[in-house]
Amino acid sequence: MARRRQLYEGKAKILFEGPEPGTIVQYFKDDATAGNGAKSGVITGKGVLNNRISEHLMLRLQEIGIPTHFIRRINMREQLVKEVEIIPLEVVVRNIAAGSIAKRFGIEEGKRLPRSIVEFYYKNDALNDPLVSEDHIIAFGWACPHDLEEMTGLAMRVNDFLCGLFAGIGIQLVDFKLEFGRAWEGEDMRIVLADEISPDNCRLWDTQTNEKLDKDRFRRDMGSVKEAYQEVARRLGILLEEGNSTEHKPTDTPV
Amino acid sequence: MARRRQLYEGKAKILFEGPEPGTIVQYFKDDATAGNGAKSGVITGKGVLNNRISEHLMLRLQEIGIPTHFIRRINMREQLVKEVEIIPLEVVVRNIAAGSIAKRFGIEEGKRLPRSIVEFYYKNDALNDPLVSEDHIIAFGWACPHDLEEMTGLAMRVNDFLCGLFAGIGIQLVDFKLEFGRAWEGEDMRIVLADEISPDNCRLWDTQTNEKLDKDRFRRDMGSVKEAYQEVARRLGILLEEGNSTEHKPTDTPV
Repeated sequence: MARRRQLYEGKAKILFEGPEPGTIVQYFKDDATAGNGAKSGVITGKGVLNNRISEHLMLRLQEIGIPTHFIRRINMREQLVKEVEIIPLEVVVRNIAAGSIAKRFGIEEGKRLPRSIVEFYYKNDALNDPLVSEDHIIAFGWACPHDLEEMTGLAMRVNDFLCGLFAGIGIQLVDFKLEFGRAWEGEDMRIVLADEISPDNCRLWDTQTNEKLDKDRFRRDMGSVKEAYQEVARRLGILLEEGNSTEHKPTDTPV
Repeated sequence: MARRRQLYEGKAKILFEGPEPGTIVQYFKDDATAGNGAKSGVITGKGVLNNRISEHLMLRLQEIGIPTHFIRRINMREQLVKEVEIIPLEVVVRNIAAGSIAKRFGIEEGKRLPRSIVEFYYKNDALNDPLVSEDHIIAFGWACPHDLEEMTGLAMRVNDFLCGLFAGIGIQLVDFKLEFGRAWEGEDMRIVLADEISPDNCRLWDTQTNEKLDKDRFRRDMGSVKEAYQEVARRLGILLEEGNSTEHKPTDTPV
């Protein structure tokens, strides 16, 4: 396979030029960070699990008509996605108070919010991804009112669907983070779901026990991080054996 | 004069029961605090100046049809206002980057913003008055969408008018904080401007020299705080001599 040009390396993924124009290869690393890089480590196998979980969720979302950047999984650690212009916002949907909202408003962690809340954070590591209002977004030109409305509507649909999907397998969707991008089809621009959806950016609690099945296990040094991700994959019906059989293919490492 | 019941003591004002039902006496103290009470002091005469400046600005705003709680000034340190149900939000309008927005988004202090920005903060000292989004406000029930739209519209009108008023006297209105309340007239509720408008909650810079004429002089230990407030009053055409003549009236202190 020809050497591919690396476009970007993030905390959990590397992006390479894709095989055709307008495509990108998204490679999932095992690296984990928390607190905007203040804490970092490796969770062996996380990249493989997130690649599979995100593929699964993106495909289910496409089935209900959510436009996403996902094209197809290439191998254990890579997926082919559409090239998009990333909107510099993290869109967070919250159903139950946890993490920063619990702290910001003095709400007990675990308390159900009066209704689902959509928040926007400005993607900027140097500024610690600050919370922003819609007026900030529009004034600074990070998104126009139309894009913002589109993202909010999509985020709420994703939340409804994922709440249902996870409820069906005994998991509460506490909150999650989405990223969106602008995909161009000739003159037409479309807002599509980008990045990934995985236990790295969702809070997932077992419905019966409230056991955390997500990256908070890493953030809070609770151990059994990989096992929690595996449990999420297992409940989603993802056959990990099939995935593991591709483990040693030559395309399985960044080139 | 009959002893009045104290209803509330804030950092810069005391509220007393008014002479008629549905009225409040707002007493202006000389106390100054900054950083949510982390720093505190006394600026002798500040209360007198803010009472006069706020009276002046509220009257000018009423003339252009902005509903306010202001009824009339009683004496040097007191004004009679309508009793309102305070909405627990600080509404900040910003024209030029300074203070928290400069820090939050890494913008150089003094840089004009792409357009005026309206921000909301949740009034809660224990939580350090956190920035909130419109979705937080509605989800937690601090205001309904209609109230929010009304406050935003009024804040923008106040900004336009005050930018003009201050421009006319050689002052740039960098930013300011407003509070609103719900005033009931029988069954009808109306959103009205409440609290005060003074150099305690505005950033005012001399147009020629950028000299600060506001509470930042206190926050940043720059000295000449009272003189700056006096300069603002003077440029607004407020005759302080007249005010001073009431200095020793018996109603001039909280009872």
